Amino acid sequence: MQTAALRHRPESEDCFLINKEQMKVRLHTGKDIKEVRVYYADVHEPLEKKRELSLTLAGHGQVQDYWEGTLTLPLHRAQYLFEVIGLDGSKCVYGDRGLREDEEAAYEDPNNYFKLPYFHEIDMVKTPDWVKHTVWYQIFPERFANGDKQNDRPGTKAWNPEDHPTREDFYGGDLQGVLDHLDYLKQLGVNGLYFCPIFKASSNHKYDTIDYLEIDPDFGDKKLFAQLVNAAHERGMHVMLDAVFNHMGDHSLQWQDVVKNGAKSRFAGWFHINRFPVEPYDPEDPSYETFAFEKHMPKLNTANPEVQDYLLTIATYWVKEFDIDAWRLDVADEVDHHFWKAFHDAVVAIKPDFYILGESWHSSQSWLNGGEFSGVMNYPFTGLISDHFLKGTQDAKTMTELLTDQLFLYRDQTNSVMLNVLDSHDTPRIKTVAGEDEDKALQALAFTFLQTGTPCIYYGTEMGMSGGADPDCRKPMDWSKAGSPVWEAVSRLIKFRLAHAKTLSQGTTLLEVAENGLVHVKRAGAEKVEAWFNTTDQPVEVKADAALSQKYADGKLAPKGYVIETM
Amino acid sequence: MQTAALRHRPESEDCFLINKEQMKVRLHTGKDIKEVRVYYADVHEPLEKKRELSLTLAGHGQVQDYWEGTLTLPLHRAQYLFEVIGLDGSKCVYGDRGLREDEEAAYEDPNNYFKLPYFHEIDMVKTPDWVKHTVWYQIFPERFANGDKQNDRPGTKAWNPEDHPTREDFYGGDLQGVLDHLDYLKQLGVNGLYFCPIFKASSNHKYDTIDYLEIDPDFGDKKLFAQLVNAAHERGMHVMLDAVFNHMGDHSLQWQDVVKNGAKSRFAGWFHINRFPVEPYDPEDPSYETFAFEKHMPKLNTANPEVQDYLLTIATYWVKEFDIDAWRLDVADEVDHHFWKAFHDAVVAIKPDFYILGESWHSSQSWLNGGEFSGVMNYPFTGLISDHFLKGTQDAKTMTELLTDQLFLYRDQTNSVMLNVLDSHDTPRIKTVAGEDEDKALQALAFTFLQTGTPCIYYGTEMGMSGGADPDCRKPMDWSKAGSPVWEAVSRLIKFRLAHAKTLSQGTTLLEVAENGLVHVKRAGAEKVEAWFNTTDQPVEVKADAALSQKYADGKLAPKGYVIETM
Repeated sequence: MQTAALRHRPESEDCFLINKEQMKVRLHTGKDIKEVRVYYADVHEPLEKKRELSLTLAGHGQVQDYWEGTLTLPLHRAQYLFEVIGLDGSKCVYGDRGLREDEEAAYEDPNNYFKLPYFHEIDMVKTPDWVKHTVWYQIFPERFANGDKQNDRPGTKAWNPEDHPTREDFYGGDLQGVLDHLDYLKQLGVNGLYFCPIFKASSNHKYDTIDYLEIDPDFGDKKLFAQLVNAAHERGMHVMLDAVFNHMGDHSLQWQDVVKNGAKSRFAGWFHINRFPVEPYDPEDPSYETFAFEKHMPKLNTANPEVQDYLLTIATYWVKEFDIDAWRLDVADEVDHHFWKAFHDAVVAIKPDFYILGESWHSSQSWLNGGEFSGVMNYPFTGLISDHFLKGTQDAKTMTELLTDQLFLYRDQTNSVMLNVLDSHDTPRIKTVAGEDEDKALQALAFTFLQTGTPCIYYGTEMGMSGGADPDCRKPMDWSKAGSPVWEAVSRLIKFRLAHAKTLSQGTTLLEVAENGLVHVKRAGAEKVEAWFNTTDQPVEVKADAALSQKYADGKLAPKGYVIETM
Repeated sequence: MQTAALRHRPESEDCFLINKEQMKVRLHTGKDIKEVRVYYADVHEPLEKKRELSLTLAGHGQVQDYWEGTLTLPLHRAQYLFEVIGLDGSKCVYGDRGLREDEEAAYEDPNNYFKLPYFHEIDMVKTPDWVKHTVWYQIFPERFANGDKQNDRPGTKAWNPEDHPTREDFYGGDLQGVLDHLDYLKQLGVNGLYFCPIFKASSNHKYDTIDYLEIDPDFGDKKLFAQLVNAAHERGMHVMLDAVFNHMGDHSLQWQDVVKNGAKSRFAGWFHINRFPVEPYDPEDPSYETFAFEKHMPKLNTANPEVQDYLLTIATYWVKEFDIDAWRLDVADEVDHHFWKAFHDAVVAIKPDFYILGESWHSSQSWLNGGEFSGVMNYPFTGLISDHFLKGTQDAKTMTELLTDQLFLYRDQTNSVMLNVLDSHDTPRIKTVAGEDEDKALQALAFTFLQTGTPCIYYGTEMGMSGGADPDCRKPMDWSKAGSPVWEAVSRLIKFRLAHAKTLSQGTTLLEVAENGLVHVKRAGAEKVEAWFNTTDQPVEVKADAALSQKYADGKLAPKGYVIETM
């Protein structure tokens, strides 16, 4: 037995409350284990009263297996110990003070039991329920629809979906364009609108904020935005805005004051400044810290209480005055935890089921323990899907194993609200990643829609749009393809997902490669959902009562096809 | 290579800031590894600029080895990847998205680098420096010294150190008794006073608080306490009080109101009540939650904002009005994290270098990430020392390995301020645990004094006092033994520890069993401190330039002896 592979971390994703009386425990092991039992009791009870539970082998990772089970403790206090039996018949006892041989004394020493000393509901990680029943639609406002020609800048280009936009182009998209298409979105089936920044800024992408308390005049005004939120809410859609709190635009009044007044500026403490004057900026020896090495985006000092007050005023303003439902936090991983905790408390005080989504491209355990973000943009998860389904650079087995490893990084309630994006304004479009192969794109999308986490469609995916890396992925929306076969297939996926959201967002997940080479997804919760994906180059036989399928006929699943069954 | 044993958790005890530009990384491996290298770069730099560092094999655990190193990133952003080379020559690359074969692509994919996206000083775990230069002395006030006969209860027993106290006995110890002996304590060498509860309560131990804002009249009054704190501070001693916030005494006005008025009591929401009336209490089906199954100690509902306000008022009152330096938190692990975060922020706002010590008997990672406790009572660590040195139930090698595992549960700054207690008011006394063997007790104490963490002596240990489990460990202080050989040896240890505190509290630690069978401690920091402990039954040769020793002569270390050398 690989004893060094045994791993359990109390009060973490390995041990968490699922309600006031129940906790889930997980044990990581090598792939050489036959059985795991957990012995558990109240913290203050004599151990003779301990109970026993066999854990379920819940997932196969790259080099680890994951075992889990649910313990019920009516007195709200738990101590527990693992008994691990290897495939070779060896046995050991694993607890809070290490490994012991399988002998009576090992089970009798309360010091070696892991503890969850008391079940506090206030500490339980909670995530908003509505997010679990949401399919998001990401809108890059400058490129979705031009609803009002009055606000177009001089030099606005013609709306041509075949264009390859440059970084400087403007096409005239605006909030009126979104408002005009809410019924379109309703028809497509999505029920969450995720907007890229809409506050006053210089660029077409608006990530270089000038004023967080104004709607950019290119897009409209506050009255229009209020109307848009209300119209979305009336249609059962939630609204998420993008908060760029890591840095400001260098055109902002605060930064301009620093440029002008140097150390004497009343905003000198708002940024991370190495020396004055701040200009000229030398990337080899920066006079101030920025986002990446982007001199137009000076980094905010969120440890400064004035900056905290300023940003929290903004964060709460749009919730209180405009009733938004969620914030997506740009470059969230580079802002300090202290600030995000204050941010969380401030918005949740107004709306208890507010959704907080961090931008983070890597494993994010330290932000997801309950007091900061609800979830993050799940690039590590969807990146693996993309590598296999779209790029073909990863084999099926490794993909299912690495996806499983990602799932066991977080608590169930966190996994349910991770944002599963296959592409976005920051990446090439899925169809282009797939070598312009629409079938592959659709297959990857279908696989993503069956996963725990909340799926998100980037505007235009339903139209089968292409686009390379930013800024090419930001073409004007191709409205000519509404109702096309791709559109219909995407819309069916969205509606299927929402019809089975309870199981798909909160049920258990088992990912594996079947013996016939198909990628096999098993979900179980309120019902059962199973699906098979053919990523081989040959048709494969599979018996399924198809609720939804592509390239499936007469019991045969063609390459790039999928079949989904519900039970 | 046991690949399933490779383990690293970003932003945790495996990856933490030690100052604004430096972070420490740790990797857990099996015991089959020859070398570990880390490749690292700024998050936004191209990976061609990455640097390389060989990690140090910093500790041998029970089944794991620990590797560590310090990375310097002047731009305050880090990404890093591990290259692991097995004893068998095999090699693999371990990063944020799993394990890869040793091929160029594995080093070139920024997605597989672990990230510490930005070094925020505000998030860095800080612990008070003065604690690292402290030897604590724990006082059970009812049994330390009777300085004022006027406040003795009727029926107070004669001060007899040979007595076996019952749970109900009173001996008349008080704060005047402590004040009278401050110079004694100064002479002994300690510089931190840790008081068991002194607030108004019914019992002799005062854990059943009636009024948190009054000194118990058995012990004195506020004027006397203020005098005592000042006198201690004048002597360079810090003062720690015991806060019992998990539960109240059932004689408290709040609980009595609940008993009397049931659901209508204005304090009904202050406790965890299952049904009214709360009396009679049935342990098989409790009408209210308690500490353990102790009906006299109803558990406080710390999620109730009124209770929070009440307890925070108390917590800050004694800091603001009496200038105490530290709180020891009773049954701290059963109180919610939300409350402790508010508690931390409240006391640290008054005294930035305040010390917060939680009572927790098990691994405590979730309380020690910076916003709650500074450290905990280190029972798992000292329990291992006790098992080997005092009880002889654990072999030397397993002890050093399990102690190493404990050290790698926490960040360095946390380890430095863990309270290393070999015994306390809650356990039998060390001499009794050692079968009344004074030499063994002294050897265990010496070993403990060489460890990272802040050592604590339970009153009377310096007198060589005996005592079984509570209440027998709470005998009246035996003042007749002051100046005895044991006393001298303990005093020398205290003074040695303080003279070398910088190295001993913050230096590196390597624990192992030498080839000659001696337990060998190597510490390195401002200087080097090495020590050998003979826990065999034969004299062993060891060459050392003794700075401090017991049973060491002519290059021979007798059983139960130790020798400490400084370089």
